Amino acid sequence: MEKETARIEGFSDGVFAIAITLLVLELRIPVAESNNNPQMLANSLLAQWPSFLAFSLSFFSIFIMWVNHHKIFKQIYRRNSALMFANGLILFLATCISYPTALLARYFGTPSLSVAVAAYTGLFVLINLAFNLLWGIASRNKDLLRPEISHTAIRKLKRNYLYGLPVHLSAFLLSFCWPGGSLVLCALLWTYWAFTSGRLDLSPGKAAGK
Amino acid sequence: MEKETARIEGFSDGVFAIAITLLVLELRIPVAESNNNPQMLANSLLAQWPSFLAFSLSFFSIFIMWVNHHKIFKQIYRRNSALMFANGLILFLATCISYPTALLARYFGTPSLSVAVAAYTGLFVLINLAFNLLWGIASRNKDLLRPEISHTAIRKLKRNYLYGLPVHLSAFLLSFCWPGGSLVLCALLWTYWAFTSGRLDLSPGKAAGK
Amino acid sequence: MEKETARIEGFSDGVFAIAITLLVLELRIPVAESNNNPQMLANSLLAQWPSFLAFSLSFFSIFIMWVNHHKIFKQIYRRNSALMFANGLILFLATCISYPTALLARYFGTPSLSVAVAAYTGLFVLINLAFNLLWGIASRNKDLLRPEISHTAIRKLKRNYLYGLPVHLSAFLLSFCWPGGSLVLCALLWTYWAFTSGRLDLSPGKAAGK
Amino acid sequence: MEKETARIEGFSDGVFAIAITLLVLELRIPVAESNNNPQMLANSLLAQWPSFLAFSLSFFSIFIMWVNHHKIFKQIYRRNSALMFANGLILFLATCISYPTALLARYFGTPSLSVAVAAYTGLFVLINLAFNLLWGIASRNKDLLRPEISHTAIRKLKRNYLYGLPVHLSAFLLSFCWPGGSLVLCALLWTYWAFTSGRLDLSPGKAAGK
Repeated sequence: MEKETARIEGFSDGVFAIAITLLVLELRIPVAESNNNPQMLANSLLAQWPSFLAFSLSFFSIFIMWVNHHKIFKQIYRRNSALMFANGLILFLATCISYPTALLARYFGTPSLSVAVAAYTGLFVLINLAFNLLWGIASRNKDLLRPEISHTAIRKLKRNYLYGLPVHLSAFLLSFCWPGGSLVLCALLWTYWAFTSGRLDLSPGKAAGK
Repeated sequence: MEKETARIEGFSDGVFAIAITLLVLELRIPVAESNNNPQMLANSLLAQWPSFLAFSLSFFSIFIMWVNHHKIFKQIYRRNSALMFANGLILFLATCISYPTALLARYFGTPSLSVAVAAYTGLFVLINLAFNLLWGIASRNKDLLRPEISHTAIRKLKRNYLYGLPVHLSAFLLSFCWPGGSLVLCALLWTYWAFTSGRLDLSPGKAAGK
Repeated sequence: MEKETARIEGFSDGVFAIAITLLVLELRIPVAESNNNPQMLANSLLAQWPSFLAFSLSFFSIFIMWVNHHKIFKQIYRRNSALMFANGLILFLATCISYPTALLARYFGTPSLSVAVAAYTGLFVLINLAFNLLWGIASRNKDLLRPEISHTAIRKLKRNYLYGLPVHLSAFLLSFCWPGGSLVLCALLWTYWAFTSGRLDLSPGKAAGK
Repeated sequence: MEKETARIEGFSDGVFAIAITLLVLELRIPVAESNNNPQMLANSLLAQWPSFLAFSLSFFSIFIMWVNHHKIFKQIYRRNSALMFANGLILFLATCISYPTALLARYFGTPSLSVAVAAYTGLFVLINLAFNLLWGIASRNKDLLRPEISHTAIRKLKRNYLYGLPVHLSAFLLSFCWPGGSLVLCALLWTYWAFTSGRLDLSPGKAAGK
């Protein structure tokens, strides 16, 4: 059976690629009058570390979203309207990431950080729900999936997203009392996902996992 | 017969993907001095709801344009100059959407909203005409279409866009006296299209609809 | 023989798609205080027509560049370094277009327009040279071309770009004394290219032209 | 064996294409009040040459990164997690380029240039390390490579990046005492890469080089 989802994947890749690249527009070069003072310019650059950190964190998070999207769509061969709109929801949320990223960079080190982190982690709760929705729609209807996919593979993919939700929810709740810890929690989950993503490889020929 | 339109579809997907992602650049984080006042920052964020609404509406509308474009090009196998330029017109109008979106966000809740909504809905009248032009060019010349396409399928696709025009025209006229109602009318049409898009599936093997 | 240029075409399409879509960022919504005066907002919008004109002209010109690029690469099957860098030069110049476009929009109706038009038309002289370079490299080395391409087809493509150069050069020279006429000359050439682009169709099976 | 990396290459091409095109956003048209003085506008434009230079240099450098990426991925047929994240690191660094480019344009001709050049060349040291990492991961595991790749080809690709590192490191160190010379050194290396890139062509059928 031929894959029917090539153009959806191409469009999604385009949106992820643009969303991930637009993040850099939030990095503004220092405007301080440091023309004649290299040391001052170097200091201004180093003082921007919260912007660089927020940028890196969000780049990494969109990259992991793309890897996951890639992995899910390797298992999807046909599409229906529900699937297309669930995918559209994921893309919508992915393009939104630059907004709380800018908040994070702007309010780092101020008492208002908690609001920025709540917006940031709240968005990832929604993203997690959207990925669960996408895989829920796809896995409920075996006609949409790669023909030879095994039950183990379906369950594995499902489980992989399941613990994402409570972690992101905890990070969201934590943001109100300890915003820094909330960000660390997110970073830990994403690092875990990055390191374990190989184990979820369900490509044809090794259907039950590596 | 081989499809000749792959590169047109790829380029169009690129333009749609960028147009849909650039919308987020209109969302600006609050500039109010709320460093030390989380409540004030939260309030500033909530006060931006017209921007979020305009952003979401336009994201959704471009996404539906892309779904429709996708659907039409599944039926088109060859291209000529007229088709390429009708497609170029659609892409031109799609990239324009961010402009009245910014107007909408900026003038929401002011007496000038009617002008913003007229610009917004007027653009969608033009988009509708461009889609009718594209499908008119393609369906007039059966050489351009998928060989085994049925007359029912051609008529179905045509009818689908036909009632878009009067609805968008009504929304345009309504914008002058009741701008809010005009936006609701657009949103209703797009929701209808989203929910019925499955019924228009004319992919090979189920040519007469699902 | 398999085409070797798929990834070059994909990358080029990406750059064209982004360059064409970024143009819209130059359109800024009116900042005048027209919150309570719809008529004033409408007037401000209409007063922006030079921006809309410059935007449309540049969109159209990049679109025609893409159509031409598409047409040339349908005849190219293999690549070498010279070809890749000639293509890179075209992409470089394409991304530059937004700069003189912004100049054009900004200085329309002022005595400084001539400088803006000279920058704009000068860029198109360079673009024309770059396209001639690309096709020169490709056609000098028949190994790079579609195997069954005819001599007529090669000459036809060459001739098509040849008269572009004197027209763009004339437009460049004209810009210093009559900038408006210079823009009209460009628009006429591009319209001619748009209308005759069908005649250049050299796709397999109709190798000697339509 | 079928290539498994199509979607990685597509996504990477998207990121490179956007990163290369976004550079132009740093070019701002002159804001001086030159409406009635064409000569003044022309002078302001010419005075922006450091911006144009920085833009051209960075465009060229990203283009060469893309050519190299293209060349490496022609030899890679399968992927694992390490490869995907090494590739993600390259993309991350590529999107960063616009930041030191803006620094370079802004501080050209001032005593603070050295800091800007150090940031610029330092980024290219990291990019070089990332490319070495990617090719290190790929070449250590022959399962990932094109089946019929020769040892000579693997070594050739490796050597090609090896002398990039000391040159970029030297440019980085040089930036503190002679920033202009540091940029010239980078430009020379990139020109050398551009001119010799043909010799590295290891496409199937001419596996041992041209």
